[in-house]
Amino acid sequence: MRKISVIGIGAGDPEQVTIQAVRALNEVDVFFLLDKGEAAEELVLLRREILDRYVGESTYRIVVAADPPRDRTASDYVGAVADWHQRRADVYERLIRDEVPEDGTGAVLAWGDPTLYDNTIAMLNTVLSRGDVEFDFEVIPGVSSVATLTARHRTSLNQIGRPVQITTGRRLARGFPDGVDDVVVMLDAHNAFAGLEESDVDIYWGAYLGTPDEILISGQVSEVAEEIRARRAQARARKGWIMDTYLLRRRTTE
Amino acid sequence: MRKISVIGIGAGDPEQVTIQAVRALNEVDVFFLLDKGEAAEELVLLRREILDRYVGESTYRIVVAADPPRDRTASDYVGAVADWHQRRADVYERLIRDEVPEDGTGAVLAWGDPTLYDNTIAMLNTVLSRGDVEFDFEVIPGVSSVATLTARHRTSLNQIGRPVQITTGRRLARGFPDGVDDVVVMLDAHNAFAGLEESDVDIYWGAYLGTPDEILISGQVSEVAEEIRARRAQARARKGWIMDTYLLRRRTTE
Repeated sequence: MRKISVIGIGAGDPEQVTIQAVRALNEVDVFFLLDKGEAAEELVLLRREILDRYVGESTYRIVVAADPPRDRTASDYVGAVADWHQRRADVYERLIRDEVPEDGTGAVLAWGDPTLYDNTIAMLNTVLSRGDVEFDFEVIPGVSSVATLTARHRTSLNQIGRPVQITTGRRLARGFPDGVDDVVVMLDAHNAFAGLEESDVDIYWGAYLGTPDEILISGQVSEVAEEIRARRAQARARKGWIMDTYLLRRRTTE
Repeated sequence: MRKISVIGIGAGDPEQVTIQAVRALNEVDVFFLLDKGEAAEELVLLRREILDRYVGESTYRIVVAADPPRDRTASDYVGAVADWHQRRADVYERLIRDEVPEDGTGAVLAWGDPTLYDNTIAMLNTVLSRGDVEFDFEVIPGVSSVATLTARHRTSLNQIGRPVQITTGRRLARGFPDGVDDVVVMLDAHNAFAGLEESDVDIYWGAYLGTPDEILISGQVSEVAEEIRARRAQARARKGWIMDTYLLRRRTTE
């Protein structure tokens, strides 16, 4: 039976991989790298660096596959994502069938933690449910960008005994979520924090976490929003891509 | 200047430590172990095993300190926690002042990730703000029990583009949170999942994650609640303590 490992490799610092991940990396016959856009080349290099550093001999192959483009102009967001999901699952199905030897092991390297805002696990479950190719898979958890963000800011993700929500920039644009004072925002391409109506919110923002390009900014949203927006635009222009995330913390007296 | 490292060591599997954590462990002069209750002995042993495995020479000391008891009968929950927080900060302040050499490094090993439902960071910020002892501190992020839970169940923490909330058993007892369909519950001593009114919720439950005692149960809450309750009580009676967490996922058609 073919085996697929989904391996969390941390948020960007090659030393954020776990001993468990290093062990798993060394059992892999073929690594799949799916990327798109301007970040592709640099992110492929970073993963190759991790393999060079931790895998003893080069007994593995790397297959770089094109990530199917998503229709970002579609008015039906959910439908466009579902369609992209199916086409991406097609790519994984083909890679598993054509590139992984019988009784061999294939692997996908996931930035941060594979269970948080990464859809590889959903892809593999989709391919399995189609029943056209047989395989087993395992998930090696990793250090998430969220844990890295809060660690670098030396603050905790949640306040004592209190809830925290992890959401998207798209959703934050509709307003600060109900029932929580601590919110982590992922995938925010449009600086949704700047549109918050609340005046009593602090932000802990980070980009390129764990890498030499790391940027950290924190403070009251109303005071640092412009600085974050400017540094973000600058960095993105310079590198051609950005990966960032932030924690919003509403001041409270509860 | 004294330095304190708060080092995430993963959810229980000694191979869940990162290369970064191993490097940090090797720079420590004195480790502080604070524990209480019946779990104490086994958890101290697990951490000693991690040190034995990853720290080259035994150039470090271990100081085991008693964790101040918390008044769990107090009607003023928030006040009781705040009081405990101050007494626990007292312990850290004393340990840093008395046990860490000038220009030396002290460390606290945190299960899972130090920024998630762990108050070491808040303690150190409290001690710093008192200004009675000077030190710098850093946080090494780790693989959280939440990431381990979802990895072991081979599911993702969030659904695509959707939010997820992390909360406590105490809060879940007041009802399923608003605005989310995916909820992770920590620190639930009273099987709050069994009291849910919703009938369309799946649970992914795990105990002693990443250890040889690991237990995983998943299914519709109404169908597996009794099984989880029984296995939980059984395991707790046998080992004298339990560490568990779970993800609730409401079925939805959005």
